[in-house]
Amino acid sequence: MKHTILITCPDMQGLVFNISSILLKHGLNIERNDEFVDKPSNQFFMRTVVNGNTNAAVLKENLCTCLPSEAQINVIEEKKKSIIILCTKENHCLGDLLLRYDSGELDVNIEAVISNHSNLQNLVGKFGIDFFHISTEGISREEHEKLVLEKCDEFNVDFLALAKYMRILSPNFVEKYKNKIINIHHSFLPAFIGANPYKQAYERGVKIIGATAHFVNNHLDEGPIITQDITKIDHTYSWQDMQKAGRDVEKVVFARAIELVLNDRVFIHGNKTVVF
Amino acid sequence: MKHTILITCPDMQGLVFNISSILLKHGLNIERNDEFVDKPSNQFFMRTVVNGNTNAAVLKENLCTCLPSEAQINVIEEKKKSIIILCTKENHCLGDLLLRYDSGELDVNIEAVISNHSNLQNLVGKFGIDFFHISTEGISREEHEKLVLEKCDEFNVDFLALAKYMRILSPNFVEKYKNKIINIHHSFLPAFIGANPYKQAYERGVKIIGATAHFVNNHLDEGPIITQDITKIDHTYSWQDMQKAGRDVEKVVFARAIELVLNDRVFIHGNKTVVF
Amino acid sequence: MKHTILITCPDMQGLVFNISSILLKHGLNIERNDEFVDKPSNQFFMRTVVNGNTNAAVLKENLCTCLPSEAQINVIEEKKKSIIILCTKENHCLGDLLLRYDSGELDVNIEAVISNHSNLQNLVGKFGIDFFHISTEGISREEHEKLVLEKCDEFNVDFLALAKYMRILSPNFVEKYKNKIINIHHSFLPAFIGANPYKQAYERGVKIIGATAHFVNNHLDEGPIITQDITKIDHTYSWQDMQKAGRDVEKVVFARAIELVLNDRVFIHGNKTVVF
Amino acid sequence: MKHTILITCPDMQGLVFNISSILLKHGLNIERNDEFVDKPSNQFFMRTVVNGNTNAAVLKENLCTCLPSEAQINVIEEKKKSIIILCTKENHCLGDLLLRYDSGELDVNIEAVISNHSNLQNLVGKFGIDFFHISTEGISREEHEKLVLEKCDEFNVDFLALAKYMRILSPNFVEKYKNKIINIHHSFLPAFIGANPYKQAYERGVKIIGATAHFVNNHLDEGPIITQDITKIDHTYSWQDMQKAGRDVEKVVFARAIELVLNDRVFIHGNKTVVF
Repeated sequence: MKHTILITCPDMQGLVFNISSILLKHGLNIERNDEFVDKPSNQFFMRTVVNGNTNAAVLKENLCTCLPSEAQINVIEEKKKSIIILCTKENHCLGDLLLRYDSGELDVNIEAVISNHSNLQNLVGKFGIDFFHISTEGISREEHEKLVLEKCDEFNVDFLALAKYMRILSPNFVEKYKNKIINIHHSFLPAFIGANPYKQAYERGVKIIGATAHFVNNHLDEGPIITQDITKIDHTYSWQDMQKAGRDVEKVVFARAIELVLNDRVFIHGNKTVVF
Repeated sequence: MKHTILITCPDMQGLVFNISSILLKHGLNIERNDEFVDKPSNQFFMRTVVNGNTNAAVLKENLCTCLPSEAQINVIEEKKKSIIILCTKENHCLGDLLLRYDSGELDVNIEAVISNHSNLQNLVGKFGIDFFHISTEGISREEHEKLVLEKCDEFNVDFLALAKYMRILSPNFVEKYKNKIINIHHSFLPAFIGANPYKQAYERGVKIIGATAHFVNNHLDEGPIITQDITKIDHTYSWQDMQKAGRDVEKVVFARAIELVLNDRVFIHGNKTVVF
Repeated sequence: MKHTILITCPDMQGLVFNISSILLKHGLNIERNDEFVDKPSNQFFMRTVVNGNTNAAVLKENLCTCLPSEAQINVIEEKKKSIIILCTKENHCLGDLLLRYDSGELDVNIEAVISNHSNLQNLVGKFGIDFFHISTEGISREEHEKLVLEKCDEFNVDFLALAKYMRILSPNFVEKYKNKIINIHHSFLPAFIGANPYKQAYERGVKIIGATAHFVNNHLDEGPIITQDITKIDHTYSWQDMQKAGRDVEKVVFARAIELVLNDRVFIHGNKTVVF
Repeated sequence: MKHTILITCPDMQGLVFNISSILLKHGLNIERNDEFVDKPSNQFFMRTVVNGNTNAAVLKENLCTCLPSEAQINVIEEKKKSIIILCTKENHCLGDLLLRYDSGELDVNIEAVISNHSNLQNLVGKFGIDFFHISTEGISREEHEKLVLEKCDEFNVDFLALAKYMRILSPNFVEKYKNKIINIHHSFLPAFIGANPYKQAYERGVKIIGATAHFVNNHLDEGPIITQDITKIDHTYSWQDMQKAGRDVEKVVFARAIELVLNDRVFIHGNKTVVF
């Protein structure tokens, strides 16, 4: 049986020794081990994948006793996680996830797809996944979000994947799914925060465009960045050409971030991430 | 004999025909020809490298007669251009240009290197180029810039290359060398405008850093971008590590931009560039 | 009405003048114009997108009269092209094309999908496209290819897109669809020609993997390259990890090549391409 | 005091525990720790940077007692390493190292530069480093190499850096500096092994060119790869243009590899590397 152990705490002498002695006592094989110490904050991060028969609760308890009290310890059993995808009108990030899901490459349960538009219903249906169209028509922003939140709450998912969901979430929503919402922003953040980044990029005359996958917090496009990538453009690109070229970056960056998060390879550290 | 012809004017029917008929009358061979029409502004750009015996002034006159009155026409004889390099303390962009100059790869006259610090004097001396240390000590910002400007004016150069020159130029200076000043900014603009972009990037937790070569105008780090590039980083990078990794991007991007400009391959179009 | 004009012929004085004078006589607006002269072979290439009412046949005839006899001239009316996709078992390149087709981003008729396996039938069916499973069981390589060729010939398509079709085509097949077959190879050609390039890459210990879209000719993986891209890897990647990371490069490179070819932006020049 | 500990041995339970217990007994702080297990070969790799007062020999001895007998253990005191640079005619890789050396970025002693040509003597002299021109004229390949080897042996260096040294080393030479010779090859290996890779790349019509830094073994361009990078090109590039664009990749890849090796971040594992 495989477990992934995530530990973060203030750095001090003996941490690796203490942790590895517990793992040894539990008879666990270390399959992969990554460590990092963030010097400025003196914070220690460790991700260990172990193999062997053990009781996760007991293991966590034992780790607790040998680590400083501020330590955050997570012993995660290997099992399929579940997500909800939120989207609006564009099919590329959503569709890319669906294809990976369909081939088994993305090993996840997609509990539902929720959209404020209906045009992607057909695509989602092809893959046998429930699609919920929650229209914004005739209701306030608050009412709409409440409906979306209620729908999300019907399921018990590990993460929400915002596959080009073009709505800003309220602090209340973000708090309820704290550190569980992954967004793809269609620019190389922190350049071009907010609406229409490709138009902004076009106006600025940049020679490279990008995309950024990040956790959502309460500052627009300012949450911890998980991964980014770029593609080169030139003066012949209209902003629509940029948008088109950008879509390929977006979907790949987004899927990579989802994969990292689902594999418990991302620590959030303040407004940054540690990615093993 | 080789000439490079740069033409930009409002787009209309018959431009290519008119221009090519003039070139044919002058008995010129087209070695390379690039055209672009910027649709939103309806502006036509053409760069043509021609070979053959001709009188540049007459050629320009003839082109004038067949083009709309707003046309900007440049017939540039092939000859070595000259530049002044301005720098502060860092050696990588400067040194990289000097090496290319030394090997003959960069076919330019470097008339002088001017710095507000003296530490690069030794390096510049190795390559037999005059170094002028214009200290800021004991004088006002205005007085310092005046001295730098006077020194630049002693030469008659085509371009000023700011090889990590850590001083902001006044509107007066920029106006005197309008469209002739090339800067390298150590970030992927428009992200991290201003001072200490690597520290800013570190604070933001980005996963990619970059560099931007651009013409200088009177808005800090907002001039027309010539070229950009990036390199990937991760959570293990301190801002000093980013700075170090960034230097390699900076120097290559800067040299590429200098090369493009010296080869008359860059049009400035409003706040953007067209690069052939 | 829009036409794309493709011209290639030995370079000589007056070509652009002659061509542009014909276009002007036809009252055509030049929307985009790209030229290139390959010096070693003295070959001229020109792609011009024109707008206006004209008769393509007459235009071609007129262009013929003013160009050298070896000139290849193509006047292509703007209309939706059609393709057949051939695949084997992997869904990523196929699925990516289907998604682009579904959203309208890829403006093409997909006449059919043909596979030597049946597992992608379900996926293709979701998008309302005919799927033909032509099994290799119990028949010879020649018989199988004959069946595939017959199926292709039932349609009248512009291109065959090999979306990870894991069969080598015979010279006869290639000849029948000369310059019309686009393949995606899962390596950075010419590295790792042939089977299992990711295993080869793993064995060699490379730090970058790539993908190559190319026209198929009769030398395995040696046809004219249309476009390539790469992604970085490290020692932690098993060959399966490389394969997974590589898929994202493959599908994007493949789709980009298909798009370029469908937009008549690719000239074949010996064993190379000129891509405008 | 800082030490870097490099350990590689067959993987087994308790390795991390055993090692960390020794480090703890020595009162050492772990500054950075990287581990990797190569599954197919069941080989464990660990690089640990520790801080504290300790005796390297005793530490190594103690580590020995707790590790399997096949273990290779290296306890490296932090001190400036020394290298010899070998080159031929091109200045870019050499010059780039010299600039980094001059600014202190590259913290190394360059004991000498050896070349089979004399044209770089002047450049090297600028930086106060001894230059030895060992001409090939009038002597056999064996005699020439013997002279080079004798010159190298005069110094006691950690590594030989082949900064575009265009000579093939004999098995004897390679054996004497086993795992200590770092070469930069001007292609994306394993594509274009051997002479004139840019011409080969030009002939093949690739759309990307690259460079590869690797340890030298007795198979031409087949030693363990340390790092690679690429740059995009198109049909307008002559092979000389490729060569020019490639130089920027070469020098950056080469310097990065040298830096990695000097910092003891590279394990050689068969024909591959593990780079922490």
